Amino acid sequence: MTNATDDERHDPQAAIDAQGDRRRTELDDRIFEHAAGDDQEGIPFVGAGPGDPGLLTVTGKELLEGADLVVHAGSLVNSELLESYCGDAELVNSIGKDLEELVPLMHDAYEDGLSVVRLHSGDPAIFGAALEQMDALEHEGVPTYFVPGVTSAFAASATLRTQLTLNEVANHVAFTRPQGKTLSEDEDHVSEFVGMGDVTTCIYLGTHAVRDTMERLLEDGHDPTTPVAVVYHASWPDEDVLVGTIDSIADQVEEAGYRASALVVVGDAVTGAGYERSYLYGDWANGEPESSDATETEAGDD
Amino acid sequence: MTNATDDERHDPQAAIDAQGDRRRTELDDRIFEHAAGDDQEGIPFVGAGPGDPGLLTVTGKELLEGADLVVHAGSLVNSELLESYCGDAELVNSIGKDLEELVPLMHDAYEDGLSVVRLHSGDPAIFGAALEQMDALEHEGVPTYFVPGVTSAFAASATLRTQLTLNEVANHVAFTRPQGKTLSEDEDHVSEFVGMGDVTTCIYLGTHAVRDTMERLLEDGHDPTTPVAVVYHASWPDEDVLVGTIDSIADQVEEAGYRASALVVVGDAVTGAGYERSYLYGDWANGEPESSDATETEAGDD
Repeated sequence: MTNATDDERHDPQAAIDAQGDRRRTELDDRIFEHAAGDDQEGIPFVGAGPGDPGLLTVTGKELLEGADLVVHAGSLVNSELLESYCGDAELVNSIGKDLEELVPLMHDAYEDGLSVVRLHSGDPAIFGAALEQMDALEHEGVPTYFVPGVTSAFAASATLRTQLTLNEVANHVAFTRPQGKTLSEDEDHVSEFVGMGDVTTCIYLGTHAVRDTMERLLEDGHDPTTPVAVVYHASWPDEDVLVGTIDSIADQVEEAGYRASALVVVGDAVTGAGYERSYLYGDWANGEPESSDATETEAGDD
Repeated sequence: MTNATDDERHDPQAAIDAQGDRRRTELDDRIFEHAAGDDQEGIPFVGAGPGDPGLLTVTGKELLEGADLVVHAGSLVNSELLESYCGDAELVNSIGKDLEELVPLMHDAYEDGLSVVRLHSGDPAIFGAALEQMDALEHEGVPTYFVPGVTSAFAASATLRTQLTLNEVANHVAFTRPQGKTLSEDEDHVSEFVGMGDVTTCIYLGTHAVRDTMERLLEDGHDPTTPVAVVYHASWPDEDVLVGTIDSIADQVEEAGYRASALVVVGDAVTGAGYERSYLYGDWANGEPESSDATETEAGDD
């Protein structure tokens, strides 16, 4: 943390730039002093998970239960979760509020001695805008830290009863978003990921663009029968699942009327068919190096 | 669920093949009947999260607390988590046990009326081998379901105090693993992901192969100064963070002596420097379609 000058006090961009300069020259000591999940001083930026209150982390729940002020991501967070855990905390919806409004709000509450929690949807490291708030707060002397969460792609795979990686079907996973106002055509990698053939492509922020995205995939020559699932509000009470193919899913999405809040999953892993069993090796886990390259055969990621 | 013939009863591969044939022709009704996170009949395959007991989900904790038998992923799961939540449950380490041993074990316990939980590390949909166990159990009449978890990449980004996606720095994220005994050179996409320039590449199951992987990246002409972090045991008490570059990190990993259990993160997002602030738009969240393509400016993924 550095102390802000008076000029920067009300200029989040200057604060972010100053923190960015610092990030270029030195690593924050706290990276090495704390492990993820540790209780830390400051305002936690908590991943709310995909929606279901039970898919919040234990630490996230405890932080919400002890909070005086919860700044949450409005309709991106299931209101059941706020009702379950936030008790008497003051709730502030961040949607529509810019940094110039949010940063002083959290700063002043923290300086007044309140327990402040910033609640983002999913995991805050994925398609979130947490860091700019954190840098602006840090620059004004308010410490912050991340508490990770379950991203909606994992709720989607759970509800689809499949894995995003699957032996001999999908070796890799991409989290991506389609071109649009804030992503140029050159930066749109959906077709490259799908073209690799063994990648499960999870498209965030693309519900409104399903038809355009699928048409580009067809133009690029991808197999029209490649499975595609659209999971609306994964893990919410109104969760809905559409399963189709590159050449059918746009009609299904339009018929259902979804324009936001769905995850689009493209790839053979969607159905869970066609995989080969793995073979479990025990040696590496008993102290041997993983030179057998066999850790993927056991039990989840590490 | 279908009933196994006597022959299949002790042949998990036949059970998997039969379930696979079924997956090709029809979708499981439960995909549409349940939302992710719902309490369901059967054996839950629970993601333990990255390690810290507080980074397990609330639902995962409750399932462990109510379990009679927990089949866990041995040294991939932090023992503190088992001690915190498993109480008097019988604990079975799955490492070194193959399907032929694990499936009857879980099947028989479930048929005896015990509450059985299968605990995988991280999220079970990422580099796990959950589905083959589930299909084998389902084929023998034991229902199963997924409970998602926090993957180690999210603990790594939390401890690094950065986001995996970052405005104007990284638009996409890849979860991948390097070539080796079970992944061919053709299936190794690390260099392609890094070459895209705006992808944060998270390499699982590649601690032992950091030098080979970095040498291939250098041979392919990638910038030697691209930031690389190696996060060992993210969120565990012995978590350790190494931060370097493509041309320095292998020496650091070898000096530290890590051969397994670390996540390798490649890309400019590692340091969190150089991003541009986003601008928050409120309209879409108040009922407008996300045609403004602005949801990524708000508060985590959805």
